[in-house]
Amino acid sequence: RKRILVTGGAGFVGSHLVDRLMLMGHEVIVLDNFFTGSKRNVQHWLGHPHFELIRHDVVDPFMIEVDQIYHLACPASPPHYQYNPIKTVKTSVMGTINMLGLAKRTKARFLLTSTSEVYGDPEEHPQKETYWGHVNPIGPRACYDEGKRVAETLTYSYMHQDEVDVRVARIFNTFGPRMNENDGRVVSNFIMQALRGDELTIYGDGQQTRSFQYIHDLVDGLILLMNKNYKEPVNLGNPEEYTIREFAEMIKSEINVDVEIMSLPPTEDDPKRRRPHIGRAQKYLGWAPKFSVGQGIRETVQYFKKTKAEQS
Amino acid sequence: RKRILVTGGAGFVGSHLVDRLMLMGHEVIVLDNFFTGSKRNVQHWLGHPHFELIRHDVVDPFMIEVDQIYHLACPASPPHYQYNPIKTVKTSVMGTINMLGLAKRTKARFLLTSTSEVYGDPEEHPQKETYWGHVNPIGPRACYDEGKRVAETLTYSYMHQDEVDVRVARIFNTFGPRMNENDGRVVSNFIMQALRGDELTIYGDGQQTRSFQYIHDLVDGLILLMNKNYKEPVNLGNPEEYTIREFAEMIKSEINVDVEIMSLPPTEDDPKRRRPHIGRAQKYLGWAPKFSVGQGIRETVQYFKKTKAEQS
Ligand SMILES: NC(=O)c1ccc[n+]([C@@H]2O[C@H](COP(=O)([O-])OP(=O)(O)OC[C@H]3O[C@@H](n4cnc5c(N)ncnc54)[C@H](O)[C@@H]3O)[C@@H](O)[C@H]2O)c1
Ligand SMILES: NC(=O)c1ccc[n+]([C@@H]2O[C@H](COP(=O)([O-])OP(=O)(O)OC[C@H]3O[C@@H](n4cnc5c(N)ncnc54)[C@H](O)[C@@H]3O)[C@@H](O)[C@H]2O)c1
Ligand SMILES: O=c1ccn([C@@H]2O[C@H](COP(=O)(O)OP(=O)(O)O)[C@@H](O)[C@H]2O)c(=O)[nH]1
Ligand SMILES: O=c1ccn([C@@H]2O[C@H](COP(=O)(O)OP(=O)(O)O)[C@@H](O)[C@H]2O)c(=O)[nH]1
Ligand SMILES: O=c1ccn([C@@H]2O[C@H](COP(=O)(O)OP(=O)(O)O)[C@@H](O)[C@H]2O)c(=O)[nH]1
Ligand SMILES: O=c1ccn([C@@H]2O[C@H](COP(=O)(O)OP(=O)(O)O)[C@@H](O)[C@H]2O)c(=O)[nH]1
Repeated sequence: RKRILVTGGAGFVGSHLVDRLMLMGHEVIVLDNFFTGSKRNVQHWLGHPHFELIRHDVVDPFMIEVDQIYHLACPASPPHYQYNPIKTVKTSVMGTINMLGLAKRTKARFLLTSTSEVYGDPEEHPQKETYWGHVNPIGPRACYDEGKRVAETLTYSYMHQDEVDVRVARIFNTFGPRMNENDGRVVSNFIMQALRGDELTIYGDGQQTRSFQYIHDLVDGLILLMNKNYKEPVNLGNPEEYTIREFAEMIKSEINVDVEIMSLPPTEDDPKRRRPHIGRAQKYLGWAPKFSVGQGIRETVQYFKKTKAEQS
Repeated sequence: RKRILVTGGAGFVGSHLVDRLMLMGHEVIVLDNFFTGSKRNVQHWLGHPHFELIRHDVVDPFMIEVDQIYHLACPASPPHYQYNPIKTVKTSVMGTINMLGLAKRTKARFLLTSTSEVYGDPEEHPQKETYWGHVNPIGPRACYDEGKRVAETLTYSYMHQDEVDVRVARIFNTFGPRMNENDGRVVSNFIMQALRGDELTIYGDGQQTRSFQYIHDLVDGLILLMNKNYKEPVNLGNPEEYTIREFAEMIKSEINVDVEIMSLPPTEDDPKRRRPHIGRAQKYLGWAPKFSVGQGIRETVQYFKKTKAEQS
């Protein structure tokens, strides 16, 4: 049994990771400031002797003795990370420095959840881990994209300078139960709009693409990455690629409603396409997604239906 | 008369900027931790009633009341900034946050000295300010390049969120008197090697290019940028472009010695070419370089000869 710290563990990805680690019998400590996450996501573990939930902002130093650190704390959806860009950069940079400092002191293994956004609006397709990316350093997405890029820089600097044992996951768009329904991301927006009978909102012409992965595949990948011996960045995503318009149609037919599709203005610097090259994950982790997007969407729709019913 | 803070003011660029600001009659405060700079560079101002030199690391907060901040503090040559990459990132990020916090509190105008390195190994040539760059986020140059990119991100975040009045200069390779002779940069290396009668060391095939600007042109540009009303990033550089091999030949003929040229292995991620597009500086600042590279080199060689003579 290991002592494992999960920062951002009350969020969407973090809470699923916590579930899996707890079921594996580990001792889990969650650090979260509840900016975008919520106690509700982990409340089923409150009171469990191997579980601890601590309200803490990772921008401030934190001391504890652990074996592994999954460092997730960071808002992830565009409306949230753009709400206070300075704070987003501080979270990414100082939060990562503090957790690397902790890893250095305790000799814990450290895993950073980076993002496909480090590739920006990519000119290489699909995106391999060797691609350097195409990011606007001063655009509205920069606080998140550049924050994560420099978090990666710091991670490898601590590896080279201080022999910290590091892992870097570059996560592509992920969805599933416990997504914040007001999160502004396309999956929760479309599902909630369809369930309410509202129009689905497409930003721009809808020809931009994304590749969507179901949360359980991501959790598999994160745990494999942490426990294997591969130190370079690894993409974790499902290569199933959709235009946003196709995706809207898919949600409509899954939910079986006949709502309209509404076109809204494009958002600035919106990446035009995105699909992971997952050769590294296959080769070094023996990982590939097991869920089709369709399967994942069906489970997610059930979750949102239940939440909606509980609310009313 | 204005009260002007110059961080990194004991360094190469900073000390020339201080000279000009002092001659213009301003009150100048220099903050420097003397990592790569030296008291010697500003000693001629010590004791002057309008001048103050403070030993301080910009990673730590600092309080003072000023009208303008030129924020230069950051090691600039590859051997120096790679000496402690974690510290380089901290200097770029926390140093910039602190100086922006100071600007926010005092309503001082803030100028960041960014770099052509934000363009990385560019795929666009010459480089316009609209180019997003091609930077390896986890390579040996990342601590500097990504540090400066996120410093730009922060600068514009403070502009949008807190109405800080900002300027961003993207400086291309600059040379002149007071360059640190052990700095490892190509200009000081080649001149010192030629003066000593040693071989000139070329990294790689010497076909990579750089465009060199003389320090006095840069200082003109920085002061213009600070005092004009243009807020977007502005390239400051001289478009005169040389391959490193041509540049070696030029130094040999300027110094008029017949030393050998030695080929060393290339350095990792060394940008293959670099030349500023200076349309913005011309249009919005009425600025263009006045010194040819040849003129600048002649003055710089005189300086290094004098220093060498003084040392022996
Ligand atoms: N979901 C995706 O599609 C996706 C894609 C790429 C990368 N990621 C990364 O995965 C991680 C988790 O994302 P998510 O989708 O679960 O987002 P989320 O917003 O649901 O979770 C982030 C969690 O971090 C917490 N947090 C934010 N700032 C904090 C701070 N300063 N101190 C302490 N806690 C803080 C939030 O309260 C929340 O619980 C993030 O690092 C994100 O960048 C997610
Ligand atoms: N010289 C160039 O060709 C060039 C090109 C692009 C950008 N720049 C930028 O211009 C600025 C000045 O560069 P330079 O060539 O004069 O370099 P330099 O190394 O001579 O000067 C940097 C100064 O900053 C000081 N410093 C470093 N870290 C500090 C810290 N944490 N706290 C306080 N002071 C600190 C150093 O002691 C030094 O005096 C830098 O921001 C650099 O990135 C220079
Ligand atoms: O258990 C620890 C050890 C360090 N840190 C923080 O991590 C950062 C980086 O630590 P490091 O030892 O690298 O840097 P230094 O203390 O030398 O700045 C510092 O701000 C520490 O306060 C932390 O939060 N918990
Ligand atoms: O209601 C929405 C929300 C998002 N999008 C688009 O869907 C894609 C994915 O957006 P999301 O915010 O989920 O993630 P990210 O842009 O970070 O990949 C982007 O092209 C958005 O412009 C959309 O058309 N309608
Ligand atoms: O005169 C000042 C004002 C602020 N700061 C520092 O600048 C940073 C950013 O200031 P801001 O007000 O933006 O942030 P906050 O204090 O809210 O973190 C903080 O670390 C401050 O300590 C500083 O060094 N000098
Ligand atoms: O002794 C030297 C020092 C530098 N360079 C090359 O000269 C160019 C400029 O290097 P410098 O360190 O001056 O600046 P930067 O790489 O930051 O532009 C690069 O291609 C270096 O590989 C070289 O060939 N020999």
